[in-house]
Amino acid sequence: MLRLGLFGAGRIGGMHARNLAAHPEVELAGIFDIDAAASAEAARQTGSKAVDSVDDLLGDAAVEGVLIASATDTHCDLIERSAKAGKAVLCEKPIHLDIKRVEACAKVVANTGAFVQIGFNRRFDPSHSAVRQAAIGGELGKLEQAVITSRDPAPPPLDYLRVSGGLFRDMMIHDFDMARFLFGEDPAEVTAMGGVLIDPRIGEVGDVDAAMVILRMASGGLCHINCSRRCAYGYDQRVELFGQHGMLVSANPSTTNIERFTDRGTAARDRLHHFFIERYAESYIREIDAFVSALKSGTSASPGFEDGRRALVIANAAIESATSGRTVRIRD
Amino acid sequence: MLRLGLFGAGRIGGMHARNLAAHPEVELAGIFDIDAAASAEAARQTGSKAVDSVDDLLGDAAVEGVLIASATDTHCDLIERSAKAGKAVLCEKPIHLDIKRVEACAKVVANTGAFVQIGFNRRFDPSHSAVRQAAIGGELGKLEQAVITSRDPAPPPLDYLRVSGGLFRDMMIHDFDMARFLFGEDPAEVTAMGGVLIDPRIGEVGDVDAAMVILRMASGGLCHINCSRRCAYGYDQRVELFGQHGMLVSANPSTTNIERFTDRGTAARDRLHHFFIERYAESYIREIDAFVSALKSGTSASPGFEDGRRALVIANAAIESATSGRTVRIRD
Amino acid sequence: MLRLGLFGAGRIGGMHARNLAAHPEVELAGIFDIDAAASAEAARQTGSKAVDSVDDLLGDAAVEGVLIASATDTHCDLIERSAKAGKAVLCEKPIHLDIKRVEACAKVVANTGAFVQIGFNRRFDPSHSAVRQAAIGGELGKLEQAVITSRDPAPPPLDYLRVSGGLFRDMMIHDFDMARFLFGEDPAEVTAMGGVLIDPRIGEVGDVDAAMVILRMASGGLCHINCSRRCAYGYDQRVELFGQHGMLVSANPSTTNIERFTDRGTAARDRLHHFFIERYAESYIREIDAFVSALKSGTSASPGFEDGRRALVIANAAIESATSGRTVRIRD
Amino acid sequence: MLRLGLFGAGRIGGMHARNLAAHPEVELAGIFDIDAAASAEAARQTGSKAVDSVDDLLGDAAVEGVLIASATDTHCDLIERSAKAGKAVLCEKPIHLDIKRVEACAKVVANTGAFVQIGFNRRFDPSHSAVRQAAIGGELGKLEQAVITSRDPAPPPLDYLRVSGGLFRDMMIHDFDMARFLFGEDPAEVTAMGGVLIDPRIGEVGDVDAAMVILRMASGGLCHINCSRRCAYGYDQRVELFGQHGMLVSANPSTTNIERFTDRGTAARDRLHHFFIERYAESYIREIDAFVSALKSGTSASPGFEDGRRALVIANAAIESATSGRTVRIRD
Repeated sequence: MLRLGLFGAGRIGGMHARNLAAHPEVELAGIFDIDAAASAEAARQTGSKAVDSVDDLLGDAAVEGVLIASATDTHCDLIERSAKAGKAVLCEKPIHLDIKRVEACAKVVANTGAFVQIGFNRRFDPSHSAVRQAAIGGELGKLEQAVITSRDPAPPPLDYLRVSGGLFRDMMIHDFDMARFLFGEDPAEVTAMGGVLIDPRIGEVGDVDAAMVILRMASGGLCHINCSRRCAYGYDQRVELFGQHGMLVSANPSTTNIERFTDRGTAARDRLHHFFIERYAESYIREIDAFVSALKSGTSASPGFEDGRRALVIANAAIESATSGRTVRIRD
Repeated sequence: MLRLGLFGAGRIGGMHARNLAAHPEVELAGIFDIDAAASAEAARQTGSKAVDSVDDLLGDAAVEGVLIASATDTHCDLIERSAKAGKAVLCEKPIHLDIKRVEACAKVVANTGAFVQIGFNRRFDPSHSAVRQAAIGGELGKLEQAVITSRDPAPPPLDYLRVSGGLFRDMMIHDFDMARFLFGEDPAEVTAMGGVLIDPRIGEVGDVDAAMVILRMASGGLCHINCSRRCAYGYDQRVELFGQHGMLVSANPSTTNIERFTDRGTAARDRLHHFFIERYAESYIREIDAFVSALKSGTSASPGFEDGRRALVIANAAIESATSGRTVRIRD
Repeated sequence: MLRLGLFGAGRIGGMHARNLAAHPEVELAGIFDIDAAASAEAARQTGSKAVDSVDDLLGDAAVEGVLIASATDTHCDLIERSAKAGKAVLCEKPIHLDIKRVEACAKVVANTGAFVQIGFNRRFDPSHSAVRQAAIGGELGKLEQAVITSRDPAPPPLDYLRVSGGLFRDMMIHDFDMARFLFGEDPAEVTAMGGVLIDPRIGEVGDVDAAMVILRMASGGLCHINCSRRCAYGYDQRVELFGQHGMLVSANPSTTNIERFTDRGTAARDRLHHFFIERYAESYIREIDAFVSALKSGTSASPGFEDGRRALVIANAAIESATSGRTVRIRD
Repeated sequence: MLRLGLFGAGRIGGMHARNLAAHPEVELAGIFDIDAAASAEAARQTGSKAVDSVDDLLGDAAVEGVLIASATDTHCDLIERSAKAGKAVLCEKPIHLDIKRVEACAKVVANTGAFVQIGFNRRFDPSHSAVRQAAIGGELGKLEQAVITSRDPAPPPLDYLRVSGGLFRDMMIHDFDMARFLFGEDPAEVTAMGGVLIDPRIGEVGDVDAAMVILRMASGGLCHINCSRRCAYGYDQRVELFGQHGMLVSANPSTTNIERFTDRGTAARDRLHHFFIERYAESYIREIDAFVSALKSGTSASPGFEDGRRALVIANAAIESATSGRTVRIRD
């Protein structure tokens, strides 16, 4: 059994708590949240214990690793402290909104040699990863084009948006990582357009609520990403890969296998999953599997810290493009 | 150009008139209907001429063949008169509701050596015929099971039902022919259940409005047919073939290629085609193509008179089974 | 926590062991199998303990219920002994192959007032149960027709088939229960045809390997069932409900969300689930949920012993129909 | 009957000849092609006549209109001569590759008051036009995003590519028109990336063989277009519209209604239509219907000359963006 601690017991932290507790090879050693009621409730649900401080976990020699699911602005601090304490880390995305802070953190990670996996959960979706595997394996010949569709059911609260880093860094960062994952390489340049199409108050806090991007990947392939902060039919998450020999689509899963035929229409399926907790339930479990497996076998973290950093670099370039009206070369 | 005459200018006769007129190798020489206004209108629409009597067409040496789309009880008389006049015949199904009358007519057809094709239009549906071709060609290995779904949008008027011969002879006869076509052989036995599930007045005129049948084909394959006189979502016409190597489905065509995604459901297609005129539009054209091609090349009629007779024999056996509660062996 | 024991640690018993152990409200108190190695292995995997005899579980006052997943011919004995020992029972289908034995057992169940749930797992499939709920709730108006497709990937060993009770009692019994579940009523009569289409050796042991059935339900609806012991594309399990207002289909779940487009075809999905363990994984978990909930809330067992008995009555009537060539009325 | 002449009897001209000849309200008065053998063959197939010069048609007072399907570089000359001769015009796209030539031609069209319809056939696709109608009618609320996928089966010959004007002007021009049609407004700006992903020889003649574009429409909506000169699974033509209330997709039509289930996959459909002649067969017929209807009713041409001009303006802006790496504002 791998003894792990958890930082953060909010919505996503609570889900991680349940997944860690149910994992056959993990013992959830303790949960810390600045909101003691939240950590107490998560501990109650999982038969674990709430602890009073970060150091209660980092100072416990029996704890081998931590999962960081606290607020974004605490990620770098917790990664650094955990790394220095010799703990393996699985940290939610994004690492941080400020690339300088990320790069400072990268040095600590490198110096300590810590194992740091970043929570790009979609890489672990069975269908996304299978089409990626097929593409990398050559089933399509050269991968020429990809289309990634990424639409949330409804915008988050404005208070969240104010500190979120904006659509490109907060939401599309997942899709930038997906583009790198699907092509198996980095993008060379990006062009982007954002718009305020859903709620003018989102514009007033300096963000956009819809955006389209094109990436040119290092070896020439083109990748389109579109995002919307609102989607009437549920959480729309599709990947389309196109190459010499055809197309592979990772389509939306249906919530049921039901088809309706009435005088209003035929073959209608039910609404999509509501949001990421439901849609990517299996991915979150497999993400922890990967963390456990890598620690046991001594392989490196994937996706690792550098994957988190690069996704942020792309997001920043996309923002620069959307602002300047220029195609932006992505620096290494 | 093949000069053809048309008997019957009702709903289906009018459609045939338009198809004959539009066929590049057919000249529609004349149209007869006991309702002179109907034949006049069909003639007007097609640039053909209405004639005053059956003999105006049968006595015209330049007329090479006739399409019989008049009332069912006139089919045998017109087949016999046309055959004796040396005309090729394409006759709508069913040949007649009384098997004795059909068998008398069969002798005239045999004696005259007339070319008689029966209007089992569904054999000419591109997808139905393609799955049949694949099955006959061995793609599935031995064809073990078939499921034929056949649902009309709404019941016909009671006045029609009174003289229709009943669901098995009037409606399911198409599906009995389809079973023979798909398996490439005759059924050996049949069991049937009918019910009055839609409108009790249909029961009062001695008919059923829903029915299910199982056929055991000569070489052992099993075939299920279900019929309903009402279908809320349009004209439902599906064929499923199952064998050693898999399954082939000839699914319903959509009326459009549109998919709708809303908060009420996803991937919804439009309603199916309303009824046979729209659904089998291409089949009716290909049926005439087959008639023209066979006459030009001198090949035999397919489906021929005997196919029409056998479908009626099966329908009669199904009625006997539904009435007696016994599985009925189908006599040759 | 509900303390439960398990009889049987074979393939399906092993799965139940894992589901019981993972259930948050169940403690798997012990496992008995006549093959001590099997129970030891199941105990090892689940952190439970293997016991040496049936009475080790039935004699343990702390054990509140048992799950019976041992060989079919032991079901009635174990139900009776468990009922007399005051244990709640969840027993795999079929109860027994001999209706007389089932009826004797029914008396014991009635006399003891024992809670006995029968393992018709498919009732707990989310989509099957949702279409049933919609139909019962009136979404389709009167339910007029149902089509149940039920095809196993490959025939079981001949040694199993010899003692299985035959396709109707061993395999289609699930579909008979499904028919009762979907319509919410019993069938009044049945007609059936079986065939040996896959392997002549199955015929030599007195069984069929493919069959089609029509049921007429008590209030008139018609239900078709087709079964095959072999299916090239996986485990095919579909339910189609048809009524006045349209059709509801519980379609096969895909194993992935991938669609392939190549020069050989488009929109191709992956193979279906291999067999019931994978296909109905969620149903088996929900079946245990229902058992636990009913025990906690004091509601009656559903599906209960009588549901198991009636499914066998229908199977016997279907065998009689297939043998005699007569539609058979189903006695109460 | 409307008497029409045809310029051009190549591949697309031949198709138009057959459609004109089959139209119930059109008389195909004559066909001119600089290749006399081509016009003779088209005349033979349609029962029309080949003429020796452009003036044989333009000088014939009985000819009311012309369809121009000759080489692109002849379009403007023929439009001007036809307009001056008082003939209505249906001209294939693009009008011309040089925007200056188009604008000169526009003056002639304006001065003569000629009726000039441009052959953006896809506007007449039943499903594309139905989703547009639904979007314009408000079914989606505000139209926020569109995704247009447009992939040809195989690149044209290099000799053609050399004079084609390049992918943006020759191929994506259809999609630029579709964007204007779907949103019911013009784009305000464009960003584009092209690549040579299929055949380096296409790059050597100065063209690209794959491209992605984002348009920002006048009222803010975002539209992505992707094109490929090669597509292994046929001619891929999809439109996706996304707005407040959901999504409407105009999907690819299947060539058959067949679904295949084998041990290699399930629900596989057949290959898509090969190319535009087959895929848009109905659109070409409806395009002529619209031409005939507008002339009869005296309404203005739609899509008209100005639609053709604007598509070229967008294509030029896309080329400028792809070349300069800047988002380009689209001038009026």
